[in-house]
Amino acid sequence: MPKQRYRITVAYDGTAYAGWQIQPKDETVQSVLERALQKMCGSRTRLHGSGRTDQGVHARGQVAHFDADITVPVSKIPIVLNTLIPSDIRVLSARKAVSDFHARRSTTAKEYRYFIWNAPMIDPFERLYCTHVRRPLDISAMRCAAKAFVGRHNFRAFTANPKTDVPSHTRNIFHLRISRSGPKICISVKGDGFLYKMVRSMVGYLLRVGAGEVSAGSVGAVISSARRTADVPTAPSSGLFLWKVWY
Amino acid sequence: MPKQRYRITVAYDGTAYAGWQIQPKDETVQSVLERALQKMCGSRTRLHGSGRTDQGVHARGQVAHFDADITVPVSKIPIVLNTLIPSDIRVLSARKAVSDFHARRSTTAKEYRYFIWNAPMIDPFERLYCTHVRRPLDISAMRCAAKAFVGRHNFRAFTANPKTDVPSHTRNIFHLRISRSGPKICISVKGDGFLYKMVRSMVGYLLRVGAGEVSAGSVGAVISSARRTADVPTAPSSGLFLWKVWY
Repeated sequence: MPKQRYRITVAYDGTAYAGWQIQPKDETVQSVLERALQKMCGSRTRLHGSGRTDQGVHARGQVAHFDADITVPVSKIPIVLNTLIPSDIRVLSARKAVSDFHARRSTTAKEYRYFIWNAPMIDPFERLYCTHVRRPLDISAMRCAAKAFVGRHNFRAFTANPKTDVPSHTRNIFHLRISRSGPKICISVKGDGFLYKMVRSMVGYLLRVGAGEVSAGSVGAVISSARRTADVPTAPSSGLFLWKVWY
Repeated sequence: MPKQRYRITVAYDGTAYAGWQIQPKDETVQSVLERALQKMCGSRTRLHGSGRTDQGVHARGQVAHFDADITVPVSKIPIVLNTLIPSDIRVLSARKAVSDFHARRSTTAKEYRYFIWNAPMIDPFERLYCTHVRRPLDISAMRCAAKAFVGRHNFRAFTANPKTDVPSHTRNIFHLRISRSGPKICISVKGDGFLYKMVRSMVGYLLRVGAGEVSAGSVGAVISSARRTADVPTAPSSGLFLWKVWY
């Protein structure tokens, strides 16, 4: 009898983990979940995520799939798995998926949110979930610059490994919105896919715009250059959340 | 020349510390701050807090005083100290105080807030700052019970060390308010002072009321008994915040 495919949605505080993907030595979110799956399923069970998140990156809505032949009712899967893992990772929901569903290949869109604490002093309770930027940021200039990212572009200038052999550096960005509530700034970006460290590179450049180091109008030329240079810094990982994945 | 007395307000995430007060082996908030004061002042400088907070308890507005003969302008004291301490502790403000100001003895009131995450699953980002209660809580019953705590009472039944030689177990509670926003419940309690583990004991009993284990009307009799029994559990430390101190 073929195994059933299951799809789970997972939230995690990435502070304690060396990212999503299994590493030989360091603890990762995938490692923790696969150990729990092995206990629940009675045999080694591979978990496929929608994509990797780097060390220190958080998730509100990571999606993953696995195949299993189990008697646990699907509604009980989150309860069973959550008793087997630490509380900084929570399986939010589980459902049965069709056999050709694939957490990575079937995605149609992803949303990331990046949080910035823009004040002279960081709130100690936000330190692990926001990037602290002391100097005042010009949100209007950042919003103006953000417009240039929206649409279908070659994002080679905004990936950390431009030499990596990926088939294409073209991605379609559906929106890039910047909102502010007191000292907390949220940058929400949704697209059909993202290159390695692409969100953190876009945010890194937007922070330079906000600080007045580069003009809001310069984004287009950087995109067109299709070359990653030191002009584009990578923003720290702790402010980044994988927010939602669409299929 | 006599030293100047300074008053500072401090916020801290208590997760990593063995409470406020200096301990021989474990790292505490007071230890961290006194090491920073020694560097800033050039000599050992004692810091007097408004009161101890236990291991894992947080603070939004702890107040403390110290005496020093320094050239650092008072407005720069938070900046200097914050560069010398980890980001889970932040000196929010500093001001000069009169020589008879005492962070503990001069208090006129304190407010604590206790946070509860009341849902089947805890948000992984709230796990260190809320107590997780899975079973639904009857907020109306808890509010009704809370009324009996308000006013001047002997709180011997709600302290963890009833045999401790304190001059009096009588305290005046000004308010005890319970609010709910989605799964997050906040219990705010303000009084002229609190006995050892008194807030956590009051919350522990209120949680039993909310779960229907004991009646809302039973608080008065427990207070009157002036005896600590197993009927009053101590709620976990991680949901507790020292919120504000008045002088």
